[in-house]
Amino acid sequence: MKKVGVAILGLGVVGSGTYKILIEHREFYKKNHGVDINVESVLELKTERALALGIEENKIAANIAEICSNPEVDIVVEVMGGVEPAKTFVLAALNAGKSVVTSNKELFCKYSHELEKTARKNKCGLFYEASCVGGVPVIRTLIDNLQGNKILSMTGIINGTTNFILTKMSDCGASYSEVLKEAQRLGYAEADPTADVEGFDAAYKLSILSSLSFHTKIPFSKVYREGITDIDIHDINYGKRLGYALKLLAVGKNSDSGIEVRVHPAFIKNSHPLANVNDSYNAVYITGDSVEDVMLYGRGAGALPTGSAIVGDIIYCATHDNFNYSTFNNTEKADPSTKFVTNFESAYYLRLDAKDKAGVLSKVSSVLSKHNISVAEVIQENRKVNGVVPLIIVTHETFEKNVNKAVDEINSVENLAKVASVIRVVS
Amino acid sequence: MKKVGVAILGLGVVGSGTYKILIEHREFYKKNHGVDINVESVLELKTERALALGIEENKIAANIAEICSNPEVDIVVEVMGGVEPAKTFVLAALNAGKSVVTSNKELFCKYSHELEKTARKNKCGLFYEASCVGGVPVIRTLIDNLQGNKILSMTGIINGTTNFILTKMSDCGASYSEVLKEAQRLGYAEADPTADVEGFDAAYKLSILSSLSFHTKIPFSKVYREGITDIDIHDINYGKRLGYALKLLAVGKNSDSGIEVRVHPAFIKNSHPLANVNDSYNAVYITGDSVEDVMLYGRGAGALPTGSAIVGDIIYCATHDNFNYSTFNNTEKADPSTKFVTNFESAYYLRLDAKDKAGVLSKVSSVLSKHNISVAEVIQENRKVNGVVPLIIVTHETFEKNVNKAVDEINSVENLAKVASVIRVVS
Repeated sequence: MKKVGVAILGLGVVGSGTYKILIEHREFYKKNHGVDINVESVLELKTERALALGIEENKIAANIAEICSNPEVDIVVEVMGGVEPAKTFVLAALNAGKSVVTSNKELFCKYSHELEKTARKNKCGLFYEASCVGGVPVIRTLIDNLQGNKILSMTGIINGTTNFILTKMSDCGASYSEVLKEAQRLGYAEADPTADVEGFDAAYKLSILSSLSFHTKIPFSKVYREGITDIDIHDINYGKRLGYALKLLAVGKNSDSGIEVRVHPAFIKNSHPLANVNDSYNAVYITGDSVEDVMLYGRGAGALPTGSAIVGDIIYCATHDNFNYSTFNNTEKADPSTKFVTNFESAYYLRLDAKDKAGVLSKVSSVLSKHNISVAEVIQENRKVNGVVPLIIVTHETFEKNVNKAVDEINSVENLAKVASVIRVVS
Repeated sequence: MKKVGVAILGLGVVGSGTYKILIEHREFYKKNHGVDINVESVLELKTERALALGIEENKIAANIAEICSNPEVDIVVEVMGGVEPAKTFVLAALNAGKSVVTSNKELFCKYSHELEKTARKNKCGLFYEASCVGGVPVIRTLIDNLQGNKILSMTGIINGTTNFILTKMSDCGASYSEVLKEAQRLGYAEADPTADVEGFDAAYKLSILSSLSFHTKIPFSKVYREGITDIDIHDINYGKRLGYALKLLAVGKNSDSGIEVRVHPAFIKNSHPLANVNDSYNAVYITGDSVEDVMLYGRGAGALPTGSAIVGDIIYCATHDNFNYSTFNNTEKADPSTKFVTNFESAYYLRLDAKDKAGVLSKVSSVLSKHNISVAEVIQENRKVNGVVPLIIVTHETFEKNVNKAVDEINSVENLAKVASVIRVVS
């Protein structure tokens, strides 16, 4: 039977989960996949983590060089996160002829070109299913299943922390800061939640997924990004009245106008399958020119779901002799011919604080109309709330620049209304 | 650039869709997958179908032998359906050294052992993503993504025709026979709808999917099968009042008790993601011991969605040098050690026609209790409907045999109630 040795770099949540899966399923993989996968080595500064998992001391490597020179190691699993020292370690492993499986979205997003070049040069495998959306099989689906399609769009809920926070805000009517504290207490959010709540994590994933979908490198710098820290519970509540759920969406589109990639909070109709993706569940909704609509749903994070994606890559690597790489020209920058859309087309939700009710709707509508924005729905409260009369307007599809101009003009009119919130609406 | 020649056997809905995708995307595949895929030959008795697609006459083969001896053909796409002559043609192609891509669920369900043996012998590829659930990427996900998991269960809505019929019955309150006629008119159901409405189509697919999930051949004969032809609109309506949607479910489970595989109508809670899979959409909900829950959703049929799955397999075949086969011991029969569960555990919905209201609930409950069945929910109508008083009971989880005995006993008591419907409830 083929023997395959694995080294795991980092025994945090995902690394420990991966280790446990490999140990518990060793006989299962021998029986069903014809391969004996053994963890030969781990690299983890906090030695106690390794010992707590029952790993023998002689398997704890002192440094990456020891793993690179270990002839028993065929596959290096990098689950450290962050760019350095992960990048140096992955390049060292590839240059030593080891295949690499990684869950590192930031590293793969920023340096896929360099990693892949090194993997090709050394004829090694490079696998990264776990870098995007945990146990949800989105990368393999894009590469080996929908690859006959021109992908027209993808819309994803691809960050578990923010989806947990927004779901809880919606369910309990609590404020962002209250729910963030609860999420931190439960381990759904980190002590410094910036990477999640400001949309960086989702933007790294969208960069990777849209590069695969649109067959050109979509650099992180091209992803528009807006987080959820300013979300007001009042808007979630008005959204509910209008039949919408608020989600942090990652949107990628490829049309005649060009490619657009953006991460931002958005309202989505309750009838859309994504609206029912709650708590820490994630999903990606993909539209291709042949397959029509496909949605992939599951756990976007966690020790075992992400470990499942890593182990899937390990077994694939262990049972295939030749490797294919990304289905795009994996350069550092986008293909020079690629046009990026920045003036997004979308419907919009606006919440205005009006001084008084009389005449406001008519004046606001007239400003919107001047900027070619037509109104789809209105909620006008009958009474003052906190000293102002809330006026909610949902527009038809329009361009972002028009909305920005209209908002500036409304805000500049004395004694009319101040625009308190502007949230995109995705149909 | 690598050139790959394709022959298509059968130009029905899926064959024509596949042809169109290949023609329209030829440059796209050259650019993005580095392979020039050309349709070299087609086999179709109705020559006018080929001509209508613009296929030149010299590409229309007279018989399978012509395709097998054509050195330009590398991959044979079988989209004829049915066992013969598809089986003879596929075996001939494999024996001629051609790789095969098929959408034929009946053929693959019944003869996968023979096809795979022939493919291995000839070192050819054998791909069948399109055999199950159209454009939904479930086979590749099981083989190359969740393969590190012990799959505990899968629950699927994997037949588009029946889901269209049940959704329409539920939306319009119309009877089975009325909606079937509409489905036939719209092309969602065939003139002879047996394969779909009696659950054969779903059972073929469940046999294939559960063989891959549970790593042993699950023969068609082991799949319990019940269709939707007896579904009464009254039950759908009572189900709605109880918060359930009625679906034709394909259920596969692997537990300490053994493997169970069954296709039957079932109520499913509205909060379950599968309950919102409507019309001709399909979905498979898979639970693995590491990945937890994953749902794959999309178009389960249709020219282009199924064509997308076929073309995905063609490109995979064209861009990989060595092929892996099924992840199970692909024999004709199940592994002799496999235990099959037949006394299913489930909650149940019962509709009883009572002669009169007085005392019926108490007497029926006592019969149920005698058979270790506990009641979870009851609807008792206050008045007679069509001369009887309907009594609806939802039980907690119990065993099928207990329910059958209780139903027999209730029916045998004079002047009590007749059990009009028994429907499983899946949580």
